[in-house]
Amino acid sequence: MVGAGQLARMTCQAAIGLGIGFRVLAATPTDSAALICADVVTGDYTDAADLRAFARGCDVLTFDHEHVPGEHLAELEKAAAGQAGAAVRPGSAALRYTQDKLAMRERLRGLGVPCPRYAPVTDLAGACARGEEWGWPLVLKAVTGGYDGRGVWVCRTPGEVAAVLAHPVTVFAEEHVGFEAELAAVVARSPHGQAAAYPVVQTVQRDGVCHEVLAPAPGLPAALALDAQRMALELAAELDVTGLLAVEMFLADGSLLVNELAMRPHNSGHWTIEGARTSQFEQHLRAVLDLPLGDPRLAAPHAVMANVFGGISPDIYSRYTHVMAADPGVKVHLYGKQVRPGRKIGHVTVIGGDVASLRDRAVRAAAYLATGNEESP
Amino acid sequence: MVGAGQLARMTCQAAIGLGIGFRVLAATPTDSAALICADVVTGDYTDAADLRAFARGCDVLTFDHEHVPGEHLAELEKAAAGQAGAAVRPGSAALRYTQDKLAMRERLRGLGVPCPRYAPVTDLAGACARGEEWGWPLVLKAVTGGYDGRGVWVCRTPGEVAAVLAHPVTVFAEEHVGFEAELAAVVARSPHGQAAAYPVVQTVQRDGVCHEVLAPAPGLPAALALDAQRMALELAAELDVTGLLAVEMFLADGSLLVNELAMRPHNSGHWTIEGARTSQFEQHLRAVLDLPLGDPRLAAPHAVMANVFGGISPDIYSRYTHVMAADPGVKVHLYGKQVRPGRKIGHVTVIGGDVASLRDRAVRAAAYLATGNEESP
Repeated sequence: MVGAGQLARMTCQAAIGLGIGFRVLAATPTDSAALICADVVTGDYTDAADLRAFARGCDVLTFDHEHVPGEHLAELEKAAAGQAGAAVRPGSAALRYTQDKLAMRERLRGLGVPCPRYAPVTDLAGACARGEEWGWPLVLKAVTGGYDGRGVWVCRTPGEVAAVLAHPVTVFAEEHVGFEAELAAVVARSPHGQAAAYPVVQTVQRDGVCHEVLAPAPGLPAALALDAQRMALELAAELDVTGLLAVEMFLADGSLLVNELAMRPHNSGHWTIEGARTSQFEQHLRAVLDLPLGDPRLAAPHAVMANVFGGISPDIYSRYTHVMAADPGVKVHLYGKQVRPGRKIGHVTVIGGDVASLRDRAVRAAAYLATGNEESP
Repeated sequence: MVGAGQLARMTCQAAIGLGIGFRVLAATPTDSAALICADVVTGDYTDAADLRAFARGCDVLTFDHEHVPGEHLAELEKAAAGQAGAAVRPGSAALRYTQDKLAMRERLRGLGVPCPRYAPVTDLAGACARGEEWGWPLVLKAVTGGYDGRGVWVCRTPGEVAAVLAHPVTVFAEEHVGFEAELAAVVARSPHGQAAAYPVVQTVQRDGVCHEVLAPAPGLPAALALDAQRMALELAAELDVTGLLAVEMFLADGSLLVNELAMRPHNSGHWTIEGARTSQFEQHLRAVLDLPLGDPRLAAPHAVMANVFGGISPDIYSRYTHVMAADPGVKVHLYGKQVRPGRKIGHVTVIGGDVASLRDRAVRAAAYLATGNEESP
């Protein structure tokens, strides 16, 4: 797995269970997964030689992020096609749609998938014209490189648009969707075409950062949930995704609009470790290894996940005692990451029967771990 | 953790989740846990210097087996008492009762805990007198060093007793119990005295080796289950166990008799990874680190675990496809161990509502992984 963040860390846990050899390409030895993986190569994922050296001896290459340059992926795939390298899963043609958000929008439009309105931006006047046409605020998105709210700007005025355009970043414009809920549909697809869909979840985001995930999405009509799963499965097939595909959607005016795509384990699927029969991390491995997929169904009526963000105090472990004593049913996952204010350093999951109380417990535990207080920061 | 078998391997997975540093002392770099752990020290657990070197920098020392010599444990504890070493959990005074089965029997008798009748053995005539008194067959057990059916001999005749006594092994005699079921009660206890009990399970053994675990024990009257849990909790307190205590019991004539003790994660608790809110591996870590214990309750009405034993063919991974395709709900755990006929190389777990069908599915999957056939070997 290229990349050694928390997604690689949790995938490593799943690989241990399956008895599958697992190697990570880490930027530094203190990356989240590098701290716990037995087979770590340190290198630069933007360097073709580092990638080649890393892939040597692997059967399959997969990713915990979407930032490996497409030309390097294409080169690795060429080696694989010549039987001289690891299979690249997902492949570069699919990954392109997670690397280039404008290309993703165009492709989705071509497929007739409902999306927010969008347009390329060349200058301030053009962008502001979109704001007038679609209504303010106007969303500007970096075409490449954004994640976790970075690379997304919600501009309420032409002045704010101008400030974003002053950055040396290529952006495009999108209408601002006043949604009822944000949803995510995570599906897996293997090279021979088997697919499996997890229950559709609701994500609760602040400033573009996921704070909570509620599985299954409370109150979502069954027909819409099925539509969301079907849309994700069709997208996985159309884009020839191997591994996981997470489709983030808006529920707006009772309809689904696709917001973002990711082709890897996704924050909206962390609940599956305890809450589903097969975790998304095991599922991703099964998919990229072309093994039959595992049962994606819920293991309990409801699961709620809350992210843990770094606070002021770096000493998170001293707060374990309180959190564990207060609620023995909360499952804590910490990523071994240095605490920095606002940084995702872990998550908690609770499973059970009543979503409101699960949510209360998860949020309380996450907030306490983050700050030592039981209220959200 | 001293020892790097599958118990350390699965404890390592739990440590990753908790974000806790985890080091193993392995005999060889190909030990099950050494293959996957990021912090491996190779050494000899019977060597005091190796143990000291291993413990350096650790806060707590714990064990995946009971074979560290008592005098070395005592030395490590002395260092800990002088603030110059890792805390040893469980301590030597408790571990003694897993290292010396005769001492365990005497202690249990002293505590009034129901056990099979037993007696030291000095010669053939004495042993055979026990066989006459209690009825044949007579069980002979090695006082130290036995596990997984090794060190236990069921002798049907004086000739078989003579054959065992010819071994250079100190044994004691035990009555052969015609049991209705074998049960196991796993509990955790932390240094400050908090304790938690898992549901009592039934173990299905052949030749002293666990093949299946059914959680909770089907048909066990609630009062007996409670008695078994209470007995295990009391034993944990009396013996000052820190970490897990697994108490193997016979259910005979409607009563409980204690058979064996283990103070570590135990094969009878592997089902907890998927089947309980807190896995035994996480629970052991929480207990030895003096963290509040996790919820030990079932996550599903029933869980069934079946061990996977090595067969003739070493190529177990080629059988993954079949097993996963046949039953997407089976959770496979492989330990990375070299396949040898009869060796425990993994386990499978299924959770759900109907114990008979879960059992069928687990046994089928385990048998297929072992041999490529769907019948037990």
